[in-house]
Amino acid sequence: METRWLEELADILPENRLLTTLPDRFSYSFDASFGEFLPEAVVQVMSTEEVAAIIKVADQYEIPVTPRGQSTSLSGGPLPVQGGIVLDFALWSQKVEVDEENRTVTVSPGVLTADINQACEPYGLLYPPDPSSAHVSTIGGNLAENSGGPRGLKYGVTKNFVLGLEVVTPKGDVIQTGQRAGDEDLDITTLIVGSEGTLGVITEAMLKLIPKPQTTKTMMAVFDDIVDAGAAISKTLTSGIFPSKMELMDEGSIVAVENYQPSGLPADAKAVILIELDGHADALEEEAEEVSEIVKSVGARETKIAENVREAEQIWTARKMVSPAISQIKPTKISEDATVPRSKIPEMMEKLHDIRDRYDINLVVFGHAGDGNLHPDVLADKRDSEEMQRVEKAVAEMFTAAIELGGTLSGEHGIGTMKAPFLEEELGAEGVEMMKRLKKAWDPKNMMNPGKIFAESGAKLELTDG
Amino acid sequence: METRWLEELADILPENRLLTTLPDRFSYSFDASFGEFLPEAVVQVMSTEEVAAIIKVADQYEIPVTPRGQSTSLSGGPLPVQGGIVLDFALWSQKVEVDEENRTVTVSPGVLTADINQACEPYGLLYPPDPSSAHVSTIGGNLAENSGGPRGLKYGVTKNFVLGLEVVTPKGDVIQTGQRAGDEDLDITTLIVGSEGTLGVITEAMLKLIPKPQTTKTMMAVFDDIVDAGAAISKTLTSGIFPSKMELMDEGSIVAVENYQPSGLPADAKAVILIELDGHADALEEEAEEVSEIVKSVGARETKIAENVREAEQIWTARKMVSPAISQIKPTKISEDATVPRSKIPEMMEKLHDIRDRYDINLVVFGHAGDGNLHPDVLADKRDSEEMQRVEKAVAEMFTAAIELGGTLSGEHGIGTMKAPFLEEELGAEGVEMMKRLKKAWDPKNMMNPGKIFAESGAKLELTDG
Repeated sequence: METRWLEELADILPENRLLTTLPDRFSYSFDASFGEFLPEAVVQVMSTEEVAAIIKVADQYEIPVTPRGQSTSLSGGPLPVQGGIVLDFALWSQKVEVDEENRTVTVSPGVLTADINQACEPYGLLYPPDPSSAHVSTIGGNLAENSGGPRGLKYGVTKNFVLGLEVVTPKGDVIQTGQRAGDEDLDITTLIVGSEGTLGVITEAMLKLIPKPQTTKTMMAVFDDIVDAGAAISKTLTSGIFPSKMELMDEGSIVAVENYQPSGLPADAKAVILIELDGHADALEEEAEEVSEIVKSVGARETKIAENVREAEQIWTARKMVSPAISQIKPTKISEDATVPRSKIPEMMEKLHDIRDRYDINLVVFGHAGDGNLHPDVLADKRDSEEMQRVEKAVAEMFTAAIELGGTLSGEHGIGTMKAPFLEEELGAEGVEMMKRLKKAWDPKNMMNPGKIFAESGAKLELTDG
Repeated sequence: METRWLEELADILPENRLLTTLPDRFSYSFDASFGEFLPEAVVQVMSTEEVAAIIKVADQYEIPVTPRGQSTSLSGGPLPVQGGIVLDFALWSQKVEVDEENRTVTVSPGVLTADINQACEPYGLLYPPDPSSAHVSTIGGNLAENSGGPRGLKYGVTKNFVLGLEVVTPKGDVIQTGQRAGDEDLDITTLIVGSEGTLGVITEAMLKLIPKPQTTKTMMAVFDDIVDAGAAISKTLTSGIFPSKMELMDEGSIVAVENYQPSGLPADAKAVILIELDGHADALEEEAEEVSEIVKSVGARETKIAENVREAEQIWTARKMVSPAISQIKPTKISEDATVPRSKIPEMMEKLHDIRDRYDINLVVFGHAGDGNLHPDVLADKRDSEEMQRVEKAVAEMFTAAIELGGTLSGEHGIGTMKAPFLEEELGAEGVEMMKRLKKAWDPKNMMNPGKIFAESGAKLELTDG
């Protein structure tokens, strides 16, 4: 009987946490990316034991399982592309336990990333990864996608701060990894981080904290030519100064933000770089002046050093506004995530502008330029199939451009469904084969978030069939 | 015919790089740990193509393959415990290519780790991992064992600096991983780092560099009670100051160094902590004073701040002398590597001293205390079987003590042969099972450095049968 597995789920969970009506299922069929896929059931889990019990049922009946945080994913990570069960962590109690002496924090998967830093603040500690979505995205989602953020330039991305995990395996066993267990010569902790739920479900994480830098200094450099901005990034980062953040916004992003919520950005500029320095107050005064001279020497028309916390916050708020602001331009936003070697940023920008002009698409580019991680976002209307065909071709060319410059498809958003078709182009057949072997070794029934990372043979990026 | 595979190797390599005489094989039968295992052949490889061709032969005939750098391993990583082929990288040309603009360096496996920093120095760049063996150990070995070092406290260990690898798989395919290839949602790069050659052979690596900190400040704090030293570490690390190094030496290590090469350490102290701060010069003056006050407030009898580079170097040379110095005490050194949560250091020190007294063994303790990573080293004479039996029991109790305190077996030296029997105790049966699946997925014939990481069922630590 087809719904036998649903009956078994009903034995594990109370009725109000097993959602099977069409309206409920529809609420879980999309995320912040492109595409809709209806799950057969949604379970609002509240404990590791429940997750383990559900996975055992799923394993027995071979039902796909897709974990989901706050569905802010830009690459389709939480989309149940083969239906099955969505695990929703929203009702799970919020655990954020700071261990001041050992400088760690233990968190449950549904905690918002910004709330971790709020909990660390009284101890003078910091969890560095800071995706722009930190106030609305969960640590579980950040772990699944190995999220980055502006501070990644100096401190690294999510996986650099994971000391250990509790994971429910595809068989429904609960394992402890990393420092929660012991030594790991085979680093399964880092393997699981970023694997988008394809190897198991993360039910708890122990994260590394650092002493919060004494102070920060924010500045903005304004450019009349985006190629100069690229040069300024390179020159600053080879000067011996190590900024904590270095973000690029192009003309399109600046205009979008100023139209959405005026933030004091120079609307006539071709690009701005937003820079944060962190460390000891005396050092920062000197370093800020030095950075100002460096960027001016390669063409910045002006620099503005924030005089106080309020001015600094205004600058970083403007940066966070990019994503919501550009969403207002047109109804459909295709958010890309490409990383190129830092020295190739000017070249990548030229290629992106060329693609934009040839396909006549609405493109804005921003991102963590210090890391070479750019977000080219295309604004379109998915009801306009002629436009979407142009967009589809343009996006495919963007991926190819990044790879040709020695870059990668995903800096921080994950591969998800959107970029899976390009994986083999990047890694080569043998590389993909080695990854597939790992997946198969852990999840031989391909039950854990199927359809992610690895494309079906012959699949290609399709935006037109939604 | 049994030597058919040797004939095939002879077709790949010139005669002088295929070593099969007993004296040659004997030279490759040991490392800096305990135990001797004779390989059947040693190949001095000089290119990725040669490694791939050799692995294909090994795969066909199911001959074990063990890669070897400069054999400084303290945990048996390069020991060919099942015979077969040893890959020696000593003749491979030394590639150290710094990319200043992208802040990366590409290296061949046989390069000494210290030579990487020498190459980076002119660019003002730094490769942070600094195992005490950096002047004599290779980057290939550091990658295989995920080596740490004093600077790991602030900057992390080897795996935190690996951007991409070239790897020969157990089938003899050459794959590019990480940023050398593209996005890796399944992080096979980090999986391979630290896997001790059990998943393939690393033939090239692209490493991340950081801007070299403007200046450093070294200081030494002297204690009459090792428990106070533990408290001083905790208090410093929760003060908001972030030292780049924080090393502990106990009484035994201090005395051994002073007997071996007088280095100005206080011979009557129960412990010293060696601290390095890095960053901007002005900030460091202030921070050094602050650290001095902190450690005195919890019982340091004095602190000594290095006045110049020479004084600082003297302090760090003393630290590097520990390992050679204690080797002079008795002929056999059993080097352990245990990590406990930092707050448990005082408790771990008490347990170690208790074990030392109960088994009447010669024990010194030193290590990267800021990370909770301690090296309890036992000095003994392997010809004295009664003593070795006591040592064997003592070492087993040390492992158990680390695990009981929530710690791990290996901070940085790898599991190798010596600690394999304890892996299941740490990770649990399901955790070990998941790791074994990964190994089997890549190396179904168990040909790549067999006998490492995973113990044979029922195996236990044996020092007495050498």
